Amino acid sequence: MQAGKDQRATREIKVVQRVLKVNERMAEENRRHFSDRGVFVINVMSSPGSGKTATLQKTIERLMPEVRAAVIVGDVATTHDADRLAVTGAPVVQVNTDAFGGDCHLAAHVIEKAADDVDLDAIELLIVENVGNLVCPAEFDIGEDVRVVVLSVTEGEDKPVKYPTMFRTCDAALLNKIDLLPHLDYDKDQAIAYIHQVNPAMPVFEISARTGAGMDAWIEWLKEKIRSKLRVKS
Amino acid sequence: MQAGKDQRATREIKVVQRVLKVNERMAEENRRHFSDRGVFVINVMSSPGSGKTATLQKTIERLMPEVRAAVIVGDVATTHDADRLAVTGAPVVQVNTDAFGGDCHLAAHVIEKAADDVDLDAIELLIVENVGNLVCPAEFDIGEDVRVVVLSVTEGEDKPVKYPTMFRTCDAALLNKIDLLPHLDYDKDQAIAYIHQVNPAMPVFEISARTGAGMDAWIEWLKEKIRSKLRVKS
Repeated sequence: MQAGKDQRATREIKVVQRVLKVNERMAEENRRHFSDRGVFVINVMSSPGSGKTATLQKTIERLMPEVRAAVIVGDVATTHDADRLAVTGAPVVQVNTDAFGGDCHLAAHVIEKAADDVDLDAIELLIVENVGNLVCPAEFDIGEDVRVVVLSVTEGEDKPVKYPTMFRTCDAALLNKIDLLPHLDYDKDQAIAYIHQVNPAMPVFEISARTGAGMDAWIEWLKEKIRSKLRVKS
Repeated sequence: MQAGKDQRATREIKVVQRVLKVNERMAEENRRHFSDRGVFVINVMSSPGSGKTATLQKTIERLMPEVRAAVIVGDVATTHDADRLAVTGAPVVQVNTDAFGGDCHLAAHVIEKAADDVDLDAIELLIVENVGNLVCPAEFDIGEDVRVVVLSVTEGEDKPVKYPTMFRTCDAALLNKIDLLPHLDYDKDQAIAYIHQVNPAMPVFEISARTGAGMDAWIEWLKEKIRSKLRVKS
């Protein structure tokens, strides 16, 4: 019985490894494709409700018109986020992962297909708003240049150590909803210490997408990344 | 190229379906096993940081000693939640899904294995605190009697329609952190309307695990469910 269970677990792990290997190859193809077209790609991940969409709305508003952006939005269902992002004027492509069996992440082949609907020659920045989930998206390279995790101060301090793959593989963390700090039992220094326990050099930007607080440093960091890759005229 | 992509997607969906079918069979075995031993099982799910652990801490404190509970806690990494739950005096078994390849959910065979470490004759209630994730755990029956989703008011109103499988398959929703409502732009009625759009008959308990507000109705509902299955002496 025990042997049977272990065999099943081993087989499951092998299937997962094969899926990840295929994904890696397709992600490299995406990366080459986007680089050839002069497009910088950012993969934005978080748990549900951390404020990804509101943060991206504010981010796009502050980047335009200097940096022209388009967005691919992944959701299990609904077009709510796409509708919210469309008000920025940036082109938005919605991917409902329900069509792929209720997937909990965006895979490289999904991004490749969605990017067919984006005019890459008209943009410098492609933003991918991933499915709200701290586990699965961390495992899937989609061909991005940088990965960013959004974490809200209402989620508790220990998320970085509980979801270490996400925080280990990201290039920056946005600590969102800092306007709520006065109303919470939240130890911000502990949260940042946990982030650095998993990823010692990770820049952490304390922001409020609602009030706009702290957005300057984040926007500067992102622009610098884009510039250093693309030499955007600025 | 397109045909190749579609074939890959079809193959992936088939693998997922096979995994789910095996899981279903094992979940039925678990359900029979727990029923035979007179144990009621609750599967508690949510996104990361919605307050599952704090809610369960308060729930266990209020059920004991009338209802004796044990907990199986699933996490990708760390024993933080298990440590927090252990203070209630209830036996706690920690499952780190990292050992199963960083899994984003608890599967039936994992629960079967973890339950070996629980003295089922000493309890009436087995609580499973699932991995923080609104997508994957919804797909996996673990042999529970009821499934409950915890949703916090800081997560935005539209989670029920964005993660419909979770809300469709659960028996009750706990709307947590209502003590924060005065500080948020949160339309509670809209959130509840979204829940009922997906699952019209679902009871929604508005609670604050921090202040204890609203816990009475939730505890009564849970006790009634346990009683009607087990006729707990009370």
